[in-house]
Amino acid sequence: MNRRMIMYTLGYIMGFEAALLILPLAVSLIYGEDCWLSFLITIAICVALALPMRFLSKPRNHIIYAREGFIIVSFAWIFLSAAGALPFVISGEIPNYIDALFETASGFSTTGASIVRDVEVLSHGILFWRSFTHWVGGMGVLVFIVAIMPNVADRSIHILRAEMPGPTMGKLVPKLKDTAKILYIIYIVLTVVEMVMLYFGGMSIFESVVHSFGTAGTGGFGVKGDSITGYSPYIQWVITVFMALFGVNFNVYFLILIGKFKSVIKSGELWTYICILLGCTAVIAANIYPIYGNLSQTLRLSAFQVSSIATTTGYATADFIHWPELSKAVLFILMFIGGCAGSTAGGLKLTRAIMLIKSIKKEYKRLIHPRSVNIARFEGKRIDEATLNNVCVYFGIYMIIIFAVFLLLCLEKNFDFESNLSASVACFNNIGPGLGLVGPASNYADYSMFSKLVLTFAMLLGRLEIFPMFIALNTSMLINKK
Amino acid sequence: MNRRMIMYTLGYIMGFEAALLILPLAVSLIYGEDCWLSFLITIAICVALALPMRFLSKPRNHIIYAREGFIIVSFAWIFLSAAGALPFVISGEIPNYIDALFETASGFSTTGASIVRDVEVLSHGILFWRSFTHWVGGMGVLVFIVAIMPNVADRSIHILRAEMPGPTMGKLVPKLKDTAKILYIIYIVLTVVEMVMLYFGGMSIFESVVHSFGTAGTGGFGVKGDSITGYSPYIQWVITVFMALFGVNFNVYFLILIGKFKSVIKSGELWTYICILLGCTAVIAANIYPIYGNLSQTLRLSAFQVSSIATTTGYATADFIHWPELSKAVLFILMFIGGCAGSTAGGLKLTRAIMLIKSIKKEYKRLIHPRSVNIARFEGKRIDEATLNNVCVYFGIYMIIIFAVFLLLCLEKNFDFESNLSASVACFNNIGPGLGLVGPASNYADYSMFSKLVLTFAMLLGRLEIFPMFIALNTSMLINKK
Repeated sequence: MNRRMIMYTLGYIMGFEAALLILPLAVSLIYGEDCWLSFLITIAICVALALPMRFLSKPRNHIIYAREGFIIVSFAWIFLSAAGALPFVISGEIPNYIDALFETASGFSTTGASIVRDVEVLSHGILFWRSFTHWVGGMGVLVFIVAIMPNVADRSIHILRAEMPGPTMGKLVPKLKDTAKILYIIYIVLTVVEMVMLYFGGMSIFESVVHSFGTAGTGGFGVKGDSITGYSPYIQWVITVFMALFGVNFNVYFLILIGKFKSVIKSGELWTYICILLGCTAVIAANIYPIYGNLSQTLRLSAFQVSSIATTTGYATADFIHWPELSKAVLFILMFIGGCAGSTAGGLKLTRAIMLIKSIKKEYKRLIHPRSVNIARFEGKRIDEATLNNVCVYFGIYMIIIFAVFLLLCLEKNFDFESNLSASVACFNNIGPGLGLVGPASNYADYSMFSKLVLTFAMLLGRLEIFPMFIALNTSMLINKK
Repeated sequence: MNRRMIMYTLGYIMGFEAALLILPLAVSLIYGEDCWLSFLITIAICVALALPMRFLSKPRNHIIYAREGFIIVSFAWIFLSAAGALPFVISGEIPNYIDALFETASGFSTTGASIVRDVEVLSHGILFWRSFTHWVGGMGVLVFIVAIMPNVADRSIHILRAEMPGPTMGKLVPKLKDTAKILYIIYIVLTVVEMVMLYFGGMSIFESVVHSFGTAGTGGFGVKGDSITGYSPYIQWVITVFMALFGVNFNVYFLILIGKFKSVIKSGELWTYICILLGCTAVIAANIYPIYGNLSQTLRLSAFQVSSIATTTGYATADFIHWPELSKAVLFILMFIGGCAGSTAGGLKLTRAIMLIKSIKKEYKRLIHPRSVNIARFEGKRIDEATLNNVCVYFGIYMIIIFAVFLLLCLEKNFDFESNLSASVACFNNIGPGLGLVGPASNYADYSMFSKLVLTFAMLLGRLEIFPMFIALNTSMLINKK
């Protein structure tokens, strides 16, 4: 194993976090807030860690294999969260380190689950950092580094594969570096467009930036206690649409850019995504109409909540724990599916859900005609046996982890079945709000430190799609034993 | 498709049900109850249906393929439930036909979920029939027919494969008919031993028969409103042990009979099963000890509930919905796993759970060493790729159905998240009691007719392990279209 290369890259990432922290530092200076010092101290710590890692472990060769890729990505995310939590603690705005770690991991993993009881008392610098982690985590830290780092070998695909969501990782263009660049350019442009649209809807510059970060990363951190409820219908619709847009596979935007509209129209995943969003909105609207009695409000609320949960963002304009059971059940099931592969959304990913159903259809055919050869197809292409199997296996471990997290949360005294189960689902799928006591109008503050650590781990595990994290932890335990 | 053979066999099954009904008829006559007439009328109806089916559709050949096997088994179970519900309605003890259908399907599928508000007012004949359906459904109706029917071709394995639980169907001896006979002999002997032990514990003959049926089929119908709570600790322990015994793969008993103790000791599934039972009992005992403060009672209660839920029986000696969340969560997760394959227990089956974990381990290894060949092994034998994949696919559709049933139940107005979700899990896995409003001290009476039909279907779907039912319904819809 190329240990030096791992340390070297992790050193790069710590340096990168120091650079990221300059932005919230600037914000706090602009607003004249005291928290600027906490960012400066954290920058100093990151640099102090980064320098020896870079210079003492200069790698003899730059070759990395799958295992190194998984380890780099996993530790990168753990390091980013661990260091990113420092400004919260140093500024005193989240005094407990475990709480701050939860909040930061929730940020980077684009979960948006919060332990802050009153978000409106936080300073601008801290609020900015909180939402900025969403934006950075959404498209992936290492994707960004690959895009900007000079001399990236195509071997780095191991890194990207571990960080990019979805069952398969496709290169848009032959060169990996260019793929990463294109992804980030699309990401930046969409984010800026949303900022402008929110600004013209009456939000301050600060609010429009923060909410665009939260939407783009499908995160969900905001600046108000009631999330988006207090904003105008125009702003609610803008966010609804942008949440949905960031849940789309970025390949689609690339195809539009290069004029391949036919391929876009043929995308089975896109159409399924649109149908799910519209279908669930319709079901919930019909279900909650008697409560509100106003068609435009009903549609706005149901579309917003569906878009928010389906894309695993987690913003809210209604406290849906008071909605009828059917609407809650639809949202609960949406939590599992998540957005499209290759988007910033979390969850199982739509492609996996589609492939799971294709596997089931195939098994059905096999049972009736045991000797016939069945080939599953998706978007015109043949899906090979191995990919289908991997998706089914993934679903297996995915459910096992949800049960395991749920079991650990049940050690709590004051949380009920619904809250614990939905908390596991909401954190592991990187959504944020769940049902019951962790609904959109509540937060995770009342959970014990143990539960918060479990959920922190679940959020990172969900963001990196399970296996990288396990491989990294398992490998490092083996090394320590030796 | 050999339609005549399907009709012919279904005719046989209706005749068989007429024969089964003679037993409750006799019981009601012994107790001098009015319900004897309802059994007689049902017998007449069954015979009236069976005769034309037998004589008008005498098959030209007896060849059946996989598809016919699935159709025969599925319709057999639907017909048995539909006709078996008649005595409840005719006797007036369950006046509504949908209710009676729910109760009968719950009986045959060995679920044990009930819509009877006060079970203690039912007549002996009806109570006997209710529990007898458990016993018949436990080992399988068609397995029994194969055992007693003359001239069974080995082709009937298609029927057994569709009815026997578990991912693979092993023949104990070369001849299928002999396998079926051996299974039933073991089943009968174990049931009689339990009856005798319960009788000597102070139960009446009637009660010991009914409860042995309920235990043997891992069903859960009893004769008291509080299930087993009111019986002596001796009886509770006897039932605890026998529930656990009926959750064991019957191959194990066969191996013991023929003296192959080494193979028994090597059985990975058996050891996992024992570890799960003991482990969960220990966790729950530690968790509930503060409530009862009495070690022997705590152990008895936790062992009973674990054995009951893990084997999908559903008897209860404590209203576990009032237990701490951890104990409830352990029981909830046990609901999914179920007993061993080749037992009378429902659920996913332990073999499947083990294979799912083996698939995950294999995927883990593949990710680290993409080019190495990994072979999964179970009980010393190599598991072929196809079996592993089928298990993962099965788990996929299994979870989808639980979500679908849950969603349909959420159309109810007065049931909460916990009740609806656990009702779906408890019925589909053939357990019976769930959590919340469908806990062991409650029943399913308050659900709407629609929900009861959904749950009835879920119970049969769970008992026949999903695919046979879908294939049968799909095929018959296609035929009707033509």
